[in-house]
Amino acid sequence: MKTEALGATAADKPLDAMRIERRAPGPRDVQIDIAYCGVCHSDLHTVRSEWGGTLYPCVPGHEIVGHVSAVGTEVSGFKVGDSVGVGCLVGSCQHCPACAEGLEQYCENGFVGTYNGPTADAPGHTLGGYSQRIVVDEKFVLRIRHPEAQLAAVAPLLCAGITTYSPLRHWRIGPGSKVGVVGIGGLGHMGIKLAHAMGAHVVAFTTSEGKRQDAHALGADEVVNSRNLEEVKRHHGSFDFILDTVAASHDLDLFTALLRRDGTLCLVGVPEHAHPSPSVAQLIFGRRSIAGSLIGGIAETQEMLDFCAERGIVADIEMIPMQQIDAAYDRMQRSDVKYRFVIDNATLGKGPA
Amino acid sequence: MKTEALGATAADKPLDAMRIERRAPGPRDVQIDIAYCGVCHSDLHTVRSEWGGTLYPCVPGHEIVGHVSAVGTEVSGFKVGDSVGVGCLVGSCQHCPACAEGLEQYCENGFVGTYNGPTADAPGHTLGGYSQRIVVDEKFVLRIRHPEAQLAAVAPLLCAGITTYSPLRHWRIGPGSKVGVVGIGGLGHMGIKLAHAMGAHVVAFTTSEGKRQDAHALGADEVVNSRNLEEVKRHHGSFDFILDTVAASHDLDLFTALLRRDGTLCLVGVPEHAHPSPSVAQLIFGRRSIAGSLIGGIAETQEMLDFCAERGIVADIEMIPMQQIDAAYDRMQRSDVKYRFVIDNATLGKGPA
Repeated sequence: MKTEALGATAADKPLDAMRIERRAPGPRDVQIDIAYCGVCHSDLHTVRSEWGGTLYPCVPGHEIVGHVSAVGTEVSGFKVGDSVGVGCLVGSCQHCPACAEGLEQYCENGFVGTYNGPTADAPGHTLGGYSQRIVVDEKFVLRIRHPEAQLAAVAPLLCAGITTYSPLRHWRIGPGSKVGVVGIGGLGHMGIKLAHAMGAHVVAFTTSEGKRQDAHALGADEVVNSRNLEEVKRHHGSFDFILDTVAASHDLDLFTALLRRDGTLCLVGVPEHAHPSPSVAQLIFGRRSIAGSLIGGIAETQEMLDFCAERGIVADIEMIPMQQIDAAYDRMQRSDVKYRFVIDNATLGKGPA
Repeated sequence: MKTEALGATAADKPLDAMRIERRAPGPRDVQIDIAYCGVCHSDLHTVRSEWGGTLYPCVPGHEIVGHVSAVGTEVSGFKVGDSVGVGCLVGSCQHCPACAEGLEQYCENGFVGTYNGPTADAPGHTLGGYSQRIVVDEKFVLRIRHPEAQLAAVAPLLCAGITTYSPLRHWRIGPGSKVGVVGIGGLGHMGIKLAHAMGAHVVAFTTSEGKRQDAHALGADEVVNSRNLEEVKRHHGSFDFILDTVAASHDLDLFTALLRRDGTLCLVGVPEHAHPSPSVAQLIFGRRSIAGSLIGGIAETQEMLDFCAERGIVADIEMIPMQQIDAAYDRMQRSDVKYRFVIDNATLGKGPA
């Protein structure tokens, strides 16, 4: 089944229109006509092979929403016309302890990413959501209960949403918690919304004075300019949890000092260049932790989508036609987006890329 | 009350015999005739002001055991002749949340260290256990239930013991846990004994091939030479908890890679030079943590002493007269001690230092 897509043929080539092959749905497969796909920093890193190991042709995109257009004979959970989503995972071993606990993102045999992952399908690696259609094992398909009009703004929940929701849940954030969110971008703006919805007292940290009002509007109770050390110090030793969404190398000690005893600084971004080595004394004198967290499992992603649907939570997005992807990547690299680009996949194959 | 002691008058001066003043016991004070005092790396760092901020004269020592020789009028928990101990703490604010939870080591107003801490007593800072006698608020005095013959070997439990016991308890180590202990020195040898006594499967990591048999004797189920990467890799992703007792700068990634999902690498030593910055990816892909832990509170220190008394656990020690302290410091710096020096305080004032 030929499908229109937007992909790259090499690390130094721009994204361009291409036709890719999708498998015919097997017994447990769901075929999805993709309506929208969010644009994640990982897409850019992978297309340009900045992390190494990118297989070409590369079609990125793992914040996928759309409608079921066909189902396999054994699929019972989905029917044609359903609103569904696909996130960062399209497969895992299904039998290791992590998979057994529904934590497929930590599959001990390696999860299958939505793009650049191993597959028997042509061309031998998975191709993502910058395409008109995708075929996915029903175990990795999420149900979307938001109103149809919100569908595009649901897309970023599949990566940015679950990446922030999962650690907030794991570290048991709720009423009474004081939570910091570092960085107000694609991930951070969801972290603020979600921590606020969970009942926490939320403090947003940003280096952009211009984002102060926005952060309040997103749900932050307080906003701190992390370049203003006096403002930062006022929060010394007071946070239960700080979610650090900034992938660029930065000073972690600024934030571990703000944790109360037994508090955790959780990193969700891998920096290209290492952070300065964090102070061990600040961990010891306070029994503090620096932890990491990776997206979320399928069950938790469904839980997050339902949590958001019940509360009317979606991402703040800028919709783009696929023809503007290069400009969007440039703006994303300058953090010039409020707060996530989403591709209107109906524009695929409708003119020059 | 004049008391014989061993102390330094400046950072560049050797330890020498001196007479210090101890206060007369107040209503809630316990006066202790010190029998033995363990020798901790912190003693050396403080005497030489290697961490800065040392106040002189400096009398170190915070692994103190001895017998009660007087009690204040309001003391109900101790009587003359009792075997008692004093560890790293002799005071705290007693009203902050940490103190209220019995976690005086994290006192939000700053605990009072057994030496180099603030006090109204002469000379204005606390003086430690390299002395014949000490007077301590009964809240900071520990009961020792070990047989008298083991008293000297109990001393190191007051710092090395509680520093390893507290994190093992906090991270709920018990039967079924796989625990690594990095470094087989004063702290590490206690970590092995305690984790083993708690029922964990214990793997000792050392760079000294010669400590292999010792580590087994201490209770390690397995011993890994951390310079042998093949041997190390066999434990990839398998540890619930790794207690890292090595204060010298070293590669933490070697150990975070060995943690299973949600595992914790706990550091209890502050390196003079920073560790290489740890890999964030290794934390994220496994939801792993790097944490720190500081000694333990008074209630937990008592719990640890009782735990050890019931099981006959003491430290492995080399007893020295105070006249050999310089040689002991030299050997300690070369890790040439099995596994803790303990001063026989009866030798104080009995000849040249």
